[in-house]
Amino acid sequence: MTEVKTNLNDVSVFIVGAGPGDPGLLTLKAAACLKKADVVVYDRLVSDEILDMVPDTCEKIFAGKAARDHFMPQDEINQTLVDLARLDKTVVRLKGGDPFIFGRGSEEAMFLAEHDVNFEIVPGITASAGCGAYAGIPLTHRGYVTGVRFVTGHCREGQHLDLNWQSMADPNTTLVIYMGLINVQKISDELIKAGLPADMPAAGIERGTTEDQRTILTTLEKLPECIERAQLKAPSLLIIGKVVDLSNTIAWHTPAHECLLEGDQTSDAADD
Amino acid sequence: MTEVKTNLNDVSVFIVGAGPGDPGLLTLKAAACLKKADVVVYDRLVSDEILDMVPDTCEKIFAGKAARDHFMPQDEINQTLVDLARLDKTVVRLKGGDPFIFGRGSEEAMFLAEHDVNFEIVPGITASAGCGAYAGIPLTHRGYVTGVRFVTGHCREGQHLDLNWQSMADPNTTLVIYMGLINVQKISDELIKAGLPADMPAAGIERGTTEDQRTILTTLEKLPECIERAQLKAPSLLIIGKVVDLSNTIAWHTPAHECLLEGDQTSDAADD
Repeated sequence: MTEVKTNLNDVSVFIVGAGPGDPGLLTLKAAACLKKADVVVYDRLVSDEILDMVPDTCEKIFAGKAARDHFMPQDEINQTLVDLARLDKTVVRLKGGDPFIFGRGSEEAMFLAEHDVNFEIVPGITASAGCGAYAGIPLTHRGYVTGVRFVTGHCREGQHLDLNWQSMADPNTTLVIYMGLINVQKISDELIKAGLPADMPAAGIERGTTEDQRTILTTLEKLPECIERAQLKAPSLLIIGKVVDLSNTIAWHTPAHECLLEGDQTSDAADD
Repeated sequence: MTEVKTNLNDVSVFIVGAGPGDPGLLTLKAAACLKKADVVVYDRLVSDEILDMVPDTCEKIFAGKAARDHFMPQDEINQTLVDLARLDKTVVRLKGGDPFIFGRGSEEAMFLAEHDVNFEIVPGITASAGCGAYAGIPLTHRGYVTGVRFVTGHCREGQHLDLNWQSMADPNTTLVIYMGLINVQKISDELIKAGLPADMPAAGIERGTTEDQRTILTTLEKLPECIERAQLKAPSLLIIGKVVDLSNTIAWHTPAHECLLEGDQTSDAADD
């Protein structure tokens, strides 16, 4: 039995994915980076339990970044990383999920590369993989779907959510929507208009992989009303596709809540 | 500074993603599961370095599973997991990548659920996230793409690769193809026929995240010939999309090899 050794020398900035919430989903390399860091620049989505893993001697800088509430503009984050690296600090830029999947890690990497700062990217468990696993919703399943697609339901302030709905309305592809709460009504309407069945299974997962995870199971058509009724808040993930049905059999972390609206019958009642 | 504690009691089978190859990309929870396991049932894609982390007292069962070369049929794997659990063993079912992304983990979970064996799913870094990070190819990048899509280029023996090419030919979505080597010519032809530009940037990444990683950068049209010339072998991942260009700036792990074919000019030559 051997321990994994990771050579972290001669790197100034590690752009690290912290995963979706459960600190157990941090990678060994991410944990090693945190132990070695002089400074951690972290986002709002990084949990307290993960921040507790940072040595007390390490400086922590909060970079904020909620969807509608940027505490530190991206330009300033970029410049901060360069400035710290030039002070010969070992910097961990810690982001929720994976830095290269809706994480803007590549913008930071571009800036570092352009300023001759050496860096590494440490991938993290993205919200889709984490929430799928903990809600018992496989992103792919043989005979159900041929693949999976991740889109963001968030758009820049004042802009219109403009996605290729026709291409997304593929019943054989699981559709995962990050930051989709605000635009869930539009997402549901447009996908149905583009041909996805109104009764396609759909789930909303709030604070996935944490002890507070809440999952609602419903259909594409009823998703907006169920989310409203359950009062799901960010961070939440939406999953739309046939695979959602499998949650009834393989959810293991927390029981999913089947969202029934007025006029719905439960499966039991329907049998009467 | 605190250590992460994970309660692993009262679970018979952990279906664990081992990530794409670099043992540093194992999660803390996966490592904890390996330390606690009585038996590990592992796939071909799990690296020796990761197997070295298993205690010497732990039984190791090889389940094989290459795309064209199933050493242990899926039914037999399923039954083995149930049988071991009934012997009161703590079982780790260790799979390359993520168990719920082209990993057939959900088939095993379904079987365990149907046989009243309790289990947990431990997500892993999927090949896309690992290869993207280590090849400097962000799966999403603002202003380049609105999302990312994963499909498998492998089909059952004797079957025809039948994907929704029209839906996949979306220039604003990064396309990642798992197990795509065998069908790369068809993939390239069909995507171009469906409207994706022939000069769309494309990459092939062999043994991503390991010390032997090789990356080739080319275009969708030339991808089949470049893969043939570089003799890429499985496991390899294909990434098609505008984001591939960013690798020229942010690759940090191993230098990417730009694939030039006869008649091509290098950028330098083109400037003359």
